[in-house]
Amino acid sequence: MKIPAPVSKRIALYHRCVATLLSEGKSTTSSQELGERLVLKPSQIRKDLSYFGEFGKRGTGYDLKDLRLSLENVLKINKTWNVCIVGAGNIGTALANHKEFLKEGYKIIAFFDRNTSKIGKKIGEKGILVYPMSELEDKVRLLKIEIGVIAVPASEARNVSEMLVKVGIKGILNFAPTKLKLTDAEIEDVDIAVSFKTLTFKMGVREIERNRSNCKENN
Amino acid sequence: MKIPAPVSKRIALYHRCVATLLSEGKSTTSSQELGERLVLKPSQIRKDLSYFGEFGKRGTGYDLKDLRLSLENVLKINKTWNVCIVGAGNIGTALANHKEFLKEGYKIIAFFDRNTSKIGKKIGEKGILVYPMSELEDKVRLLKIEIGVIAVPASEARNVSEMLVKVGIKGILNFAPTKLKLTDAEIEDVDIAVSFKTLTFKMGVREIERNRSNCKENN
Repeated sequence: MKIPAPVSKRIALYHRCVATLLSEGKSTTSSQELGERLVLKPSQIRKDLSYFGEFGKRGTGYDLKDLRLSLENVLKINKTWNVCIVGAGNIGTALANHKEFLKEGYKIIAFFDRNTSKIGKKIGEKGILVYPMSELEDKVRLLKIEIGVIAVPASEARNVSEMLVKVGIKGILNFAPTKLKLTDAEIEDVDIAVSFKTLTFKMGVREIERNRSNCKENN
Repeated sequence: MKIPAPVSKRIALYHRCVATLLSEGKSTTSSQELGERLVLKPSQIRKDLSYFGEFGKRGTGYDLKDLRLSLENVLKINKTWNVCIVGAGNIGTALANHKEFLKEGYKIIAFFDRNTSKIGKKIGEKGILVYPMSELEDKVRLLKIEIGVIAVPASEARNVSEMLVKVGIKGILNFAPTKLKLTDAEIEDVDIAVSFKTLTFKMGVREIERNRSNCKENN
């Protein structure tokens, strides 16, 4: 089963939207309603969901509780994932204080840093302890950590990613602005600098279109 | 000119890779080399770049300095963008201290917060001032702010996005875990919770594949 990358992203968005609809007291939904909320085509949503079997019924739509359960199975969030963060800086602290993660099954339980002045400190509101890199292997095993977040500068990211894979980490969320190549773990990039550039690129395209349509109006 | 969303993201990656190659002392590159560095197919890279005219020459590849200039024009980073952040919390602080943004033309020059205890404080290493929301319109005009970053909880994000558009902001980087619908501004989402879910989804798919191939080996 080869799932295209954009589908994976949208599946996570569907899951959140379904949770919101349930919290509003609804019991069913349709690809139209999901499409309106997420600014997507209903046909796209039906196609995406069809990767995982038959969800909805023609005419009656989707049962929200069933759909949530199915999506949680698909997204593997019907369990708690133990997460460590390498790099006890600003990004790491922001993540440690993030409210949504724990609710959704991601539990940040350890920090690692090579900076000796940070070791032994407690990060964020929950006071998550910072360990030295030398304890990575032991702690990953002991605390059953499955996901590693890379929150170090780009120059250190590759080295850290290799260390994480070596101690058995199977999934990496990478905040460092560099492309990592690993075959033994899944990687998801959160690249904020690229998001800035994508935004201004879109702003530029819109400006060109606006100027063009102004020209037409003036002719 | 309608540019597909994934192309916009890759263009930003090409730009960073070109800058890295130049810093390594190289003067030309090829779609093969870019592809190896970015884990993309050379044909994909040639197709993406063709959206913006003829860049490379068959046989000789791309001149790196020319390519960088062209990509900077395309990405609109041949100028400085003034950026404000709404929400002086952890994410905002992490952004204020981010080294790469200013280098690439994004200058964070103001924070806004509705929390009176935060107003007047200085955020991050550069000491960026926090203003009250009531000063949004004046400061955006006075400081020539073009981009707004939303770093508030999901429940406040829609309200903030409408305020930003009302005062003339044309581009929004949204960190709140909610989908915003705006027609008068471009939006780019940085949705960390979705990235976590996308990661564990991919980890789940890989596990299924591994189990399947183990089964085959045992038969």
